[in-house]
Amino acid sequence: MIVCKFGGTSVASAEQIKKVANIVKSNPERKIVAVSAPGKRSSDDIKVTDLLIDLAETALAGGDVESKINGVVNRYRDITDGLGLDNTMMNVIAADLSERVQADRSNKDLFIDSIKASGEDNNAKLIASYFNSIGMPAKYVSPKEGLVLNDLPERTYALPEAYVNLSKLKDTKEIIIFPGFFGYTKEGILRTFDRGGSDITGSILASAVGATLYENFTDVDCVFAANPKVVNDPVDIKEITYREMRELSYAGFSVFHDEALMPVYKQGIPVNIKNTNNPSAPGTRILPTRIQTNRPVTGISADGGFSILYVSKYLMNREVGFGRKLLQIIEEENISYEHTPSGLDDISVIMRSNQLTPEKEERIVARVKTELCADDVHFSHNFSMIVIVGEGMRHNTGLAARAATAISNTGANIEMINQGSSEVSLVFGVRSEFEDRILKGLYEEFFAKIPIS
Amino acid sequence: MIVCKFGGTSVASAEQIKKVANIVKSNPERKIVAVSAPGKRSSDDIKVTDLLIDLAETALAGGDVESKINGVVNRYRDITDGLGLDNTMMNVIAADLSERVQADRSNKDLFIDSIKASGEDNNAKLIASYFNSIGMPAKYVSPKEGLVLNDLPERTYALPEAYVNLSKLKDTKEIIIFPGFFGYTKEGILRTFDRGGSDITGSILASAVGATLYENFTDVDCVFAANPKVVNDPVDIKEITYREMRELSYAGFSVFHDEALMPVYKQGIPVNIKNTNNPSAPGTRILPTRIQTNRPVTGISADGGFSILYVSKYLMNREVGFGRKLLQIIEEENISYEHTPSGLDDISVIMRSNQLTPEKEERIVARVKTELCADDVHFSHNFSMIVIVGEGMRHNTGLAARAATAISNTGANIEMINQGSSEVSLVFGVRSEFEDRILKGLYEEFFAKIPIS
Repeated sequence: MIVCKFGGTSVASAEQIKKVANIVKSNPERKIVAVSAPGKRSSDDIKVTDLLIDLAETALAGGDVESKINGVVNRYRDITDGLGLDNTMMNVIAADLSERVQADRSNKDLFIDSIKASGEDNNAKLIASYFNSIGMPAKYVSPKEGLVLNDLPERTYALPEAYVNLSKLKDTKEIIIFPGFFGYTKEGILRTFDRGGSDITGSILASAVGATLYENFTDVDCVFAANPKVVNDPVDIKEITYREMRELSYAGFSVFHDEALMPVYKQGIPVNIKNTNNPSAPGTRILPTRIQTNRPVTGISADGGFSILYVSKYLMNREVGFGRKLLQIIEEENISYEHTPSGLDDISVIMRSNQLTPEKEERIVARVKTELCADDVHFSHNFSMIVIVGEGMRHNTGLAARAATAISNTGANIEMINQGSSEVSLVFGVRSEFEDRILKGLYEEFFAKIPIS
Repeated sequence: MIVCKFGGTSVASAEQIKKVANIVKSNPERKIVAVSAPGKRSSDDIKVTDLLIDLAETALAGGDVESKINGVVNRYRDITDGLGLDNTMMNVIAADLSERVQADRSNKDLFIDSIKASGEDNNAKLIASYFNSIGMPAKYVSPKEGLVLNDLPERTYALPEAYVNLSKLKDTKEIIIFPGFFGYTKEGILRTFDRGGSDITGSILASAVGATLYENFTDVDCVFAANPKVVNDPVDIKEITYREMRELSYAGFSVFHDEALMPVYKQGIPVNIKNTNNPSAPGTRILPTRIQTNRPVTGISADGGFSILYVSKYLMNREVGFGRKLLQIIEEENISYEHTPSGLDDISVIMRSNQLTPEKEERIVARVKTELCADDVHFSHNFSMIVIVGEGMRHNTGLAARAATAISNTGANIEMINQGSSEVSLVFGVRSEFEDRILKGLYEEFFAKIPIS
């Protein structure tokens, strides 16, 4: 049994949904389909999810919701018209939206979540009815039937019983259309996953039914070894391990939401990233293990928006607990950090800048100075992390040297190197203005010079 | 005013102490002299300090102390005879040792400390009387007169009032002979500094009297850029900053006890490491700042005996506080760590192996597994840290690349690279069996290829 997930652009229009139907039809193993809300049809289009957020905020502001509801409904009408469906579904969607808008607003976030989630929910109903209209027996299944989530305020995840409940789906005759992105707590409160959350839903379903394959349909043929916006015509990745994918998606590779890999990772279910617009392309396969190619590096990613907190204190290394106390202060500002390179009397903490505010920075610097009696404490910003990823590459003698040399040849100074823990990645911190140049240089070093395997 | 410190080999015999007298005489600025206990006269000799430890342990074991005391006394007699002194000092020393041996033994450590410290104390008295016997007005000053230390059980350090008390020494007409290695708490309890503690005493004295220079006399002409036991005829270091010295002494450079720099560092007092056996050699000057040479690297040191705790957990980087909790567990075993390189889902903690026991390792692994729910936790041993040190070298583009390349060319795999915080050092973790080969390779890269400045 195959679980497929179709992303926003794959279900953005009647034309796209027809492609989805053909893909599902072409392989009887494709029994469970998770769908996103209609995405952009063109670069200047608006996602249904964004229309819904606008609707929710208008409602909260006491504005004119009718016009907003119509905006959403019309978006679906374009689709149903194009699919030759009657108005039944339109009325269902309109009624559903009015009901959600009238719901309890005491918790603004939950109110917005409920309206956002209607995008996937109604799209799933719509697609199920389309499948049936063309003689493909299909059935909409609501997350209410088993996708149990944890309670607020923790970050959203599926509880163990969710997997037990959803495992029953493997016995249904019809093709199951399941809305992505959300589920319900034991108390029946609707909660959503992070953006990209439909990937998680598909992954949970694949794990629950013990699928042989999880197909993740998007609008690219494959994952590239480097960002095509920066590197000219990068090679495609045919096979990649879960760990490699995780490391890559962490720094800039937005193609796959990293947390979404968790459920299939645990079961060792292979993932195939494919293109709805070119289903015959083999795509990229994410596997527990892969055959080594003649290339030590699988991919290179780069991401900006990092800041570094620098702390120095003479004889710091003699103080048991110094690092721990420093991280405690950072934790108390609810900041998660990425790396902590350290010298003898110095330690740096590298974190994503978006977690910082001038006030937070001030508080942290003040506390580190007074509570840890540090000699020097300061933040610096505009750093990028360049991550070179390859299974087992750590044991490739000379790889760090090649990478550092390639970076130096771009004229950039290496602000930080982090190697030593992960066996699949090597991280370089550089000033963001060098990011693109370095990505090009490293791609040149590790890919352009070697024949494609 | 110059404060000099003479190490164990510089005061090991009558012949050596005559050299000390000539050195002190040759410059009237040399008014304060800190001395160690008599060290080895030849490689197979036994230090007085070790004779004293043997004496203390024999006493605690209820053994025959008389013969042990005689052993120590005879060692001093060789010196007094060689210096043409009468028996006065011998009787003082014998009486002193008998008194110390009869002292309270309720705290074994303090009992041993008191007997160990007699090595410096009696040597200072002996040297003072010798100076006077040859017409150099000298005065033994006991640490009782001002060198106030903190109380147990903390690691020993001088309290602020010690500096105030000792500042008075600058007004004395005679040359002051001050025993290194120990001081007294407010309650009059004798406490010793770590081994190499005479360096600390000299440094405290230099700081207290605001010396223009702290001369540290040892048995080498200078500090070398790399370990002469490994690298063939390494270049000498003429000038080095405090920070560079710290980083070097941390990994293997045993020439100077790093903590001893603290008091002079705070005052910016220059330190000159010189050779008692070749006082005309300029030696190595440790300064707050130095003139940049044409060489980015000042020295390379290497030290073995490191272990790595490896911890991995899927989605670790999403857990605020994971690293802090890990370090807390290590701290609760009272282990201080060196570096914590981290990947996305992995973190390694690098520490000195001598802090570990099989029981500690077991406890740590068990706690990390259960309390942090880690997927994989294990220790690995026999690592060496190679430290490349140079003021401002961090901003030398390409230096990390050169270093990594030189290491790779030895065939060694780089297990860890730590760059990013300290501006003066770059640390590589390697398997210990490669240590010497790598040190040679790095020396070749950064020194042999460049004309000596």
